[in-house]
Amino acid sequence: MFITFEGVEGAGKSTQIQALAVRIKKHGPNVPLVVTREPGDGPFGPQIRSIVLEGPSSGEMDSRTELLLMLADRCQHVNRVIVPCLQQNGIVLCDRFMDSTIAYQGYGRELPLDTVTLADRFARGDLLPDKTFLIDIDPVIGLGRQTNRNRMEAESINFHTRVRSGFLAIAAAAQERVVILDGTHTVTELNDEIWNHFQSLIT
Amino acid sequence: MFITFEGVEGAGKSTQIQALAVRIKKHGPNVPLVVTREPGDGPFGPQIRSIVLEGPSSGEMDSRTELLLMLADRCQHVNRVIVPCLQQNGIVLCDRFMDSTIAYQGYGRELPLDTVTLADRFARGDLLPDKTFLIDIDPVIGLGRQTNRNRMEAESINFHTRVRSGFLAIAAAAQERVVILDGTHTVTELNDEIWNHFQSLIT
Repeated sequence: MFITFEGVEGAGKSTQIQALAVRIKKHGPNVPLVVTREPGDGPFGPQIRSIVLEGPSSGEMDSRTELLLMLADRCQHVNRVIVPCLQQNGIVLCDRFMDSTIAYQGYGRELPLDTVTLADRFARGDLLPDKTFLIDIDPVIGLGRQTNRNRMEAESINFHTRVRSGFLAIAAAAQERVVILDGTHTVTELNDEIWNHFQSLIT
Repeated sequence: MFITFEGVEGAGKSTQIQALAVRIKKHGPNVPLVVTREPGDGPFGPQIRSIVLEGPSSGEMDSRTELLLMLADRCQHVNRVIVPCLQQNGIVLCDRFMDSTIAYQGYGRELPLDTVTLADRFARGDLLPDKTFLIDIDPVIGLGRQTNRNRMEAESINFHTRVRSGFLAIAAAAQERVVILDGTHTVTELNDEIWNHFQSLIT
């Protein structure tokens, strides 16, 4: 089972993904569990992540370069990390995946959506998440929770507002797959909501 | 003016590009001259080059990842290095460009040619070389000239033979742009042939 977590910066994805992993290990099925993220957890992901997140400001990096680097990381990540775990009937929890590409490089950077979709499909192949948790929050609140800001987080509120609207548009078009969660709920509330969805998935 | 040099490993591109640069500085027009290469001469090209050329063997890197990394480097290289020089009416001599992508990732790695072409176009934008020198040589001879082999050079003779046939197919389809040179000619002979072509370009 392949589960992705999506949302703007500061939505609480990392906290929730770790909490879900702990609960699965305690109470979930006894199968291989991989907790991973994009960009950066592919075989040479750290190098790509450092270019994309700590690299030159957006003024110095073409949006198409950013997209291509993200997708290079995805391609490697899918083939060497995610698919091998799924082939062992494992569970993969992934912090950001294809929806982030559409939301950030499509809606945020305003690259043509059809091109971004096509390019993502090329990198990703046929793999689709079984379920996606979109933790939705106003970027003003989300960014307020962040202290050290990386290259993406340092973008304008307008940028992050476009990204959020992108996520919501994706969710509206893929209601079977994407669960929208309210990111203003407490950590514990979100934790339980996600756990309940997870349980209904595996039963 | 934008001039690219193409060919299999060991064809003599680097030697010829340097020789042409020296002659242009001595006898050519007094305009900005940039000698550059792909992958690696974009703003964070060294990092990308090290992944692509000194990174994992092809068994560990998906061909699509390789393509996406090459194109990320190209996009940045075009926008930050090549185009700025051309806008000053300069001359850019570039060691490998779009034809290498079609030849290596298309013919060599056998990714679908239409996809590779489309992806290259996305990264490159509208920029096309004014002239391309394809130094053609049997890969057995070319590779015999190399000592330290990087990741690409370490590929099989079959791979390099496909790459060579790719270059020749590109040249056949773009005869106005691509000049095929015989890589078994001596360095001095090639030097003069390229200089003659260059002079006819600028007059």
